[in-house]
Amino acid sequence: MWARLRVYIHPRRRVNYHSFSVARQLKCTYRMPTYKLTYFDSRGSAEFIRLVFAAAGQPFEDVRLTREEWADFKPKAQFGSLPALEVDGRQFGESVAIANYVARELGFFGKTARDELIINQTVQLMQELKSNAIPIFMEQNEVNKAELGKKFLEETVPRYMDYAKRILEENTTGYYVGSSLTLADLAVYDVAFNLEFRHPGILDKYPVIKAHSETVLTNPKVKAYVDARKPTPL
Amino acid sequence: MWARLRVYIHPRRRVNYHSFSVARQLKCTYRMPTYKLTYFDSRGSAEFIRLVFAAAGQPFEDVRLTREEWADFKPKAQFGSLPALEVDGRQFGESVAIANYVARELGFFGKTARDELIINQTVQLMQELKSNAIPIFMEQNEVNKAELGKKFLEETVPRYMDYAKRILEENTTGYYVGSSLTLADLAVYDVAFNLEFRHPGILDKYPVIKAHSETVLTNPKVKAYVDARKPTPL
Repeated sequence: MWARLRVYIHPRRRVNYHSFSVARQLKCTYRMPTYKLTYFDSRGSAEFIRLVFAAAGQPFEDVRLTREEWADFKPKAQFGSLPALEVDGRQFGESVAIANYVARELGFFGKTARDELIINQTVQLMQELKSNAIPIFMEQNEVNKAELGKKFLEETVPRYMDYAKRILEENTTGYYVGSSLTLADLAVYDVAFNLEFRHPGILDKYPVIKAHSETVLTNPKVKAYVDARKPTPL
Repeated sequence: MWARLRVYIHPRRRVNYHSFSVARQLKCTYRMPTYKLTYFDSRGSAEFIRLVFAAAGQPFEDVRLTREEWADFKPKAQFGSLPALEVDGRQFGESVAIANYVARELGFFGKTARDELIINQTVQLMQELKSNAIPIFMEQNEVNKAELGKKFLEETVPRYMDYAKRILEENTTGYYVGSSLTLADLAVYDVAFNLEFRHPGILDKYPVIKAHSETVLTNPKVKAYVDARKPTPL
């Protein structure tokens, strides 16, 4: 268990106190940073970041580019890719780096170094599962595409769902670490949602993961966000 | 700038104080965890983790499996893959999750949440670059293999070396964050080493990255480790 006191001194000399009681004692005010998340008009690799903002009730500018707008934005994107996050005007890239940062800043990254290891591990596994699906989308030949899709559903998905289940069951609370929502839960929920969205009924094969998705949706802020979000095919 | 006081209470009731002066005041002893890193007999995706241990002067058990031993170990590997890290007997997987954890525990993960974002971003970019090389190794057809290899060296590598250069130059110290070595430096160094190892002279095209590698090697512990490490083809 980590007991931690963190005092953040902003480079621009404003003082942010992450512990509210410390802030009160020191009579300083907390200044909320502004977040702007730029991605395409889809869930894709930005959605687990949006879910963290939603769970935290943190307002953010949700910029969704059309393909034409992306052509204009691309030279301005740090690493030629999306999502990109601007925090107080400075831009960062790489979805996992952004998700980790937002989760840490908003309190969804666990309490201990061990928690963070488990969260990172879970997030990386979900990234691997998603990256296994990319060759299916890229394949032009319909016969090969069908074969890759079959292998993905019959081998890859069960394997990663088993990993996700085992990590979850090592903790006994229904959450990945501790006894409340973290980035790990949101990353697994996002993958499970997309699997069920593309293959209705598939989660019945993975009852522990299905039950975990239901646990995630007991969070009223996440539920409200998911219910209200714009439906997109990806 | 974060000012941080971290007190770790070990689950097994031993009290570890990460701040030595606190430990002294409280008359407690610091117990070093034991680390066992299992991988193949190569640098591969374990080397940036080994480099963190080296930079920290942290002893660890460096287990290198033969293909035959891997067949035996595989069912015991958490996620069917290597590297795997055991900390005080508990096993974790996923190279980036392990690297982040070890870097955090040993003081190579920056000081602020912003530092961590930049480190994560840099590490993810290097992972992407490495994953772009995998299809070349997988390709069986020699003509296609040569074509993929050419594209990798002429398009992918310059693009990612430019990203690595830009992040480095946003900081003015010669290091990726702050003014000392972090996981970001070691991850970029590891990639640069492998590029130069496979394509001698290639780093001359990327003088900022080459100079950065030299900066990393000014660390006597890293230099001693690199000079003494077992040469392997990968």
